[in-house]
Amino acid sequence: MKAVNVVLVGFGRVGKAFLQVISEKKELLRKRYNLDIMIKAIFRRGRACILQDNIDVNQLLEKDYYWKPGIALAQVLDTEEPGVLVECTPSNIKTGEPGLTHINLALDKGWHVATANKGPLVVDLQSLREKAKKNRLALKFSGATAAALPALDVALYSLAGTEITRIEGILNGTTNYILTKMEEGMDYRDALKEAQAKGIAESDPSLDVGGWDTAVKILLISNAVLETDFTLEDMNVEGIENISSRFIKEKREEEKSLKLLGRLTKEENDYKIEVALTSIDDSHPLFGIKGAEKGISFTTDTMDKVTVTGGESDPKGAGASILKDIINIYSG
Amino acid sequence: MKAVNVVLVGFGRVGKAFLQVISEKKELLRKRYNLDIMIKAIFRRGRACILQDNIDVNQLLEKDYYWKPGIALAQVLDTEEPGVLVECTPSNIKTGEPGLTHINLALDKGWHVATANKGPLVVDLQSLREKAKKNRLALKFSGATAAALPALDVALYSLAGTEITRIEGILNGTTNYILTKMEEGMDYRDALKEAQAKGIAESDPSLDVGGWDTAVKILLISNAVLETDFTLEDMNVEGIENISSRFIKEKREEEKSLKLLGRLTKEENDYKIEVALTSIDDSHPLFGIKGAEKGISFTTDTMDKVTVTGGESDPKGAGASILKDIINIYSG
Repeated sequence: MKAVNVVLVGFGRVGKAFLQVISEKKELLRKRYNLDIMIKAIFRRGRACILQDNIDVNQLLEKDYYWKPGIALAQVLDTEEPGVLVECTPSNIKTGEPGLTHINLALDKGWHVATANKGPLVVDLQSLREKAKKNRLALKFSGATAAALPALDVALYSLAGTEITRIEGILNGTTNYILTKMEEGMDYRDALKEAQAKGIAESDPSLDVGGWDTAVKILLISNAVLETDFTLEDMNVEGIENISSRFIKEKREEEKSLKLLGRLTKEENDYKIEVALTSIDDSHPLFGIKGAEKGISFTTDTMDKVTVTGGESDPKGAGASILKDIINIYSG
Repeated sequence: MKAVNVVLVGFGRVGKAFLQVISEKKELLRKRYNLDIMIKAIFRRGRACILQDNIDVNQLLEKDYYWKPGIALAQVLDTEEPGVLVECTPSNIKTGEPGLTHINLALDKGWHVATANKGPLVVDLQSLREKAKKNRLALKFSGATAAALPALDVALYSLAGTEITRIEGILNGTTNYILTKMEEGMDYRDALKEAQAKGIAESDPSLDVGGWDTAVKILLISNAVLETDFTLEDMNVEGIENISSRFIKEKREEEKSLKLLGRLTKEENDYKIEVALTSIDDSHPLFGIKGAEKGISFTTDTMDKVTVTGGESDPKGAGASILKDIINIYSG
């Protein structure tokens, strides 16, 4: 049995879902993967909780008296046997903070990293990757790209040895939900309202409908696949706010479906990364992706086109994808 | 740079395609994966070729004088620094031979195995897996299940930590091609003839149209995922030989599509593995899989449903999938 220490930073929806999955899967992890995951500490804004073996993780979700102020992350990372830092603080794509500091600290102190936080990766993926490589540590971020949709795994693991010449992804559930509803005849406002009522869209949906969430995801996936250092400034980003129902109806009459695609293309030796509204027909592997579902398609030189779709998109799916990353760090 | 010795057994279409891919990818393997793949020997019926560094692998495909009789696989595996045995001999699902002997030999002598040969896995997966585990060696078989369609990777790597409760796959290009053509109005005989003319179906198509190729693939995938030891005798296997065009037309009128699915289902704690003709509607993730394309869908507890489709299905795709397995053995 291999004991793996985990320190969780960030106790929002994804962090909690991750703890829940870990707690539900304890037996399976031991039996199937020979791993004993030990949550050593949890950090949330200004407070932290150092876990003793006899604390039931479920209780943390309810009770307050475990949480103490004044505990430094650096100190915990120094004291405990290095394992995996799980980063789930809110994403800031301008500064990368506070996640960037946490991840750098972990990599400096010999801890692997599994992050669901996009910010640090948008701001500084290249340096983080180099630091991880130099220190022979894993930097995993399934939870930051498309969570339970295994976009990164397929690109980096299943397509290892191929040259990926094109990527197209429906990477944001909110926009695809709205476009699907508009195809069914709803107008933009009503479709957005319905998405918000169902908890698919956030109350401020601007990052989603403006194409920025898709942009960040295709950027991270592209940089991971190509080992490049592109930034959001290198991209054209389209949103769905100005689409008319009439335009969608016209496309439907041509038996086409309008999708907001994150896209990487290669022309000669130049790469282009963009977010573009694109009408596709039923020969396209993402044609059938309806509602809040996601999907991504890779075109390669030796394996032709490989497409992966689906995957739980709620916090539970993100939590499960962090656990998946941890398992794969240790069973490689 | 890590030098990886490879011994290839079997010099048919897949074996040759594998060599071709290795030769084309030499630079990429060095640069991206830090791997220097050295083909040390190739075995074909009764003869073998020991490769010197200065022999161009491409020449082997044409010239005859490199091939010598009387060289024993065991001796080569003993002499060379252990790396990966690549098994591409013809598949015999009754005896597993000659592949079973080759794979056992390799695992006994400290070599990892990547096989495109289904036979040994159908006959004795459990023992081979245990031997590999005991000797801390990898036993990879992407090339034996769905080649460039990353069915096993997604199940074992991307869905690590989930419980897979259902698998449904379109795993045979020939049968799906025939069913698609029949939906377009062709009758069974003409569709089969067209598939043969296009090189999709073999001249003896009985293993494909009888459902047995699908059966073997879903059996191997299921046994790999569940770590079980089911055999073909445990399965109900349906083929497509007796489908009438009229039946397909009726399904089309109901907006359904008839597919030959390899399927694993779980009911209570019982698993059922089968090959069944199934009509599905457009809410099913495999509805859009037409012609010789393949796809597989996994239902899980924590990540919902994840589906992967596509992947080159000719020998090149199989060769590339063996290379992928080798890369993943060394970059885990």
